[in-house]
Amino acid sequence: MRHLLDFQGWSRTEVESLLDTARVMREVLERPIKKVPALQGFTVATVFFEPSTRTRISFELAARRMSADVVSFAAQTSSLQKGESYKDTLLTLEAMGVDAYVIRADSAGVPHQATRWVKGAVINGGDGRRAHPTQALLDAYTLLEALGTLEGKKVAIVGDILHSRVARSGAELLSLLGAQVFCAGPPSLLPQSLPGAHLTPRLEEALEEADAVMVLRLQKERMEAGLVHLEDYVARYQVTEKRLALAKPQAPLLHPGPMNRDVELEGTLADSARSLVNRQVQNGVAVRMAVLYHLLVGREKA
Amino acid sequence: MRHLLDFQGWSRTEVESLLDTARVMREVLERPIKKVPALQGFTVATVFFEPSTRTRISFELAARRMSADVVSFAAQTSSLQKGESYKDTLLTLEAMGVDAYVIRADSAGVPHQATRWVKGAVINGGDGRRAHPTQALLDAYTLLEALGTLEGKKVAIVGDILHSRVARSGAELLSLLGAQVFCAGPPSLLPQSLPGAHLTPRLEEALEEADAVMVLRLQKERMEAGLVHLEDYVARYQVTEKRLALAKPQAPLLHPGPMNRDVELEGTLADSARSLVNRQVQNGVAVRMAVLYHLLVGREKA
Amino acid sequence: MRHLLDFQGWSRTEVESLLDTARVMREVLERPIKKVPALQGFTVATVFFEPSTRTRISFELAARRMSADVVSFAAQTSSLQKGESYKDTLLTLEAMGVDAYVIRADSAGVPHQATRWVKGAVINGGDGRRAHPTQALLDAYTLLEALGTLEGKKVAIVGDILHSRVARSGAELLSLLGAQVFCAGPPSLLPQSLPGAHLTPRLEEALEEADAVMVLRLQKERMEAGLVHLEDYVARYQVTEKRLALAKPQAPLLHPGPMNRDVELEGTLADSARSLVNRQVQNGVAVRMAVLYHLLVGREKA
Repeated sequence: MRHLLDFQGWSRTEVESLLDTARVMREVLERPIKKVPALQGFTVATVFFEPSTRTRISFELAARRMSADVVSFAAQTSSLQKGESYKDTLLTLEAMGVDAYVIRADSAGVPHQATRWVKGAVINGGDGRRAHPTQALLDAYTLLEALGTLEGKKVAIVGDILHSRVARSGAELLSLLGAQVFCAGPPSLLPQSLPGAHLTPRLEEALEEADAVMVLRLQKERMEAGLVHLEDYVARYQVTEKRLALAKPQAPLLHPGPMNRDVELEGTLADSARSLVNRQVQNGVAVRMAVLYHLLVGREKA
Repeated sequence: MRHLLDFQGWSRTEVESLLDTARVMREVLERPIKKVPALQGFTVATVFFEPSTRTRISFELAARRMSADVVSFAAQTSSLQKGESYKDTLLTLEAMGVDAYVIRADSAGVPHQATRWVKGAVINGGDGRRAHPTQALLDAYTLLEALGTLEGKKVAIVGDILHSRVARSGAELLSLLGAQVFCAGPPSLLPQSLPGAHLTPRLEEALEEADAVMVLRLQKERMEAGLVHLEDYVARYQVTEKRLALAKPQAPLLHPGPMNRDVELEGTLADSARSLVNRQVQNGVAVRMAVLYHLLVGREKA
Repeated sequence: MRHLLDFQGWSRTEVESLLDTARVMREVLERPIKKVPALQGFTVATVFFEPSTRTRISFELAARRMSADVVSFAAQTSSLQKGESYKDTLLTLEAMGVDAYVIRADSAGVPHQATRWVKGAVINGGDGRRAHPTQALLDAYTLLEALGTLEGKKVAIVGDILHSRVARSGAELLSLLGAQVFCAGPPSLLPQSLPGAHLTPRLEEALEEADAVMVLRLQKERMEAGLVHLEDYVARYQVTEKRLALAKPQAPLLHPGPMNRDVELEGTLADSARSLVNRQVQNGVAVRMAVLYHLLVGREKA
């Protein structure tokens, strides 16, 4: 494993090995002194062509907890020469001695392209609608903590499936780990197909007997684009206490954050014991530590 | 002491103990290697919902001098869901392992609310017109250096008292330490009352026999809002060499910075030997080191 | 040497000593653990009154590789009180304990002024059209790697000479090191004179028998200001494979980046073996490490 772009070509064993490392990192984070020298002398760059403070800080903390140096590159790129700009930016950082690149981009495929330009490790921090693999890993990690295994479990993903890299990477990874993934959302927000997932416009079909429910954030832009009306969405697709009764008792609730309370999710559920939202964020740092460690130290050994 | 929000409920002894620690930190800052491992493994987040480079950098340096990790969160929040956004942001940072939060907000009370959301230590880095306790601490520290004691000393605070968290926190803390605080400004910029302070529209009353004079920054916004005219303000409230002759000989001059030279303060005074402006900034790092240390290491011992 | 503003008053020996240190730093950057404790306890501030992510990150990495603390100050200054604001900002940083200032400003002379305000070391990170000495140093270092010596070598600098601090500092430094510098560009983009350089509107005169060619970035602003038309510039001044045949065989090609491919430089050349652009960026970190080390540790010894 040289990069983390998505889960194409990954074996279940490889994923499980990565999640094992994340478990060790989780223990580091429980210590009074949450710092290890594992990546001393390595440099990690966060290269965000699209802003995302949460994901950036999570990666930065993951790198710092392992004593790596971190540089942050936040870019506004001209629409004209984006390709050029991505490439030049990355070549410049590589020449400065960067070892790993966390790349977030609003257009799909930028992290893939990056692997052709730089020798360092590329981590996809979210690219367009395509993939967000560290989010999927932290979701899988959190679900495994809660459910013990994903083998044969039914996981519902609810919301704007069409535009969601979280849904896409989630379906890919969770099905690789043995889960049955159901994605539900309004017809205007469902893709034609989604590898690893059953698609349905019927929320009830997804929730029924679900072992866990992942709720996606509804972006304002979808409403502005006329793809969905807020009232319709809330009326038909909001995950409420009542609707959640269709799922298995105590089925946990996940959300990538930040939540629009009382839009995609009934507000009381957001703060209920079933919500694993904070645990997801905690695990996010551990999972990203594991990814950086595997790519930077693991690849040297290989 | 679990948080630093303002000085309500603080005893004089507690403040003096904190200032004693600041004195030790001041000595660290005089060393050739200005770095101690006191906060190794702790993470401090600066969470600025209102921009302020100076205060942010002062806190960041304070944390780094004690070997803490620092993450910076600069937020633009939508006017609609501010409450939500504050809470979600802080819960996210806490889940990522942050131990202390320095919060700056344009609306009063956000740091107080934060203490109900997170388990970590909350430091008020300035909230609306309410409080700016680390500024008050560095002012007190600087005045104690200059005057030896604040017991029975007369301190004049001059300017836009109404909108000033510096004046509010200053009056609270300096009176707790035994000073007599006089706040002077135009009637349109004076509050009805200010705990710990005598209010007066007569600059002369505040300056007369003052042991020290604190000049506040006059914000452009006050003039734009029609609360005061620049020429009137300068004519009646600018602290000039001539007016300062009313105070005790060599009474020191403080200003929270950045100064509008020749607006609130005659330019020549700003750079005179009486100005302790640079000393205030120096002491600011030491005081913030002491606050972080008390809250992070002190509370563990308690 | 207390500051690095430009190369006035520098001897060739002093420059060569600095480049020798850069050679040592280059070796540090080749090690598996690219980190030395040389500047532990020192604080370097990047103070950018004009944005430049590349230069800022290069300096930040240089400082971190030597274990210094780094604070970044990115400033938007009001047009009214710029002088004041520069001074107050720097005095504030000095009071906070900063040891070295990397200053980038859109108006010439700010770093010079800064040396009158602060006691710390000032490094010019580019000021207006005046100077960009660390760029010149990394260019010289890269040329010396490629050519062995600059004594008697002909170096062509091509492009918008008039507005270029890279050309100005390059001509100054390369001629000090014994090179013959020819600057070529459209008449509207040539200054009246340039110390250390021969000026010519004839690209061919500069390229003929050149040992190395430095191509400058053509700023969009020049075209918007009507100083040059894109088609004309490309037709007459673009450095193409064909035109480069006038230079010595295998004469290396430099560019300060980021490149406008197929504007100032034929795209195929940019990625050819003759291009030393990445090497320039690599050497940039080493050269900046050397500058920080000379100014911070060297001056203490002196």
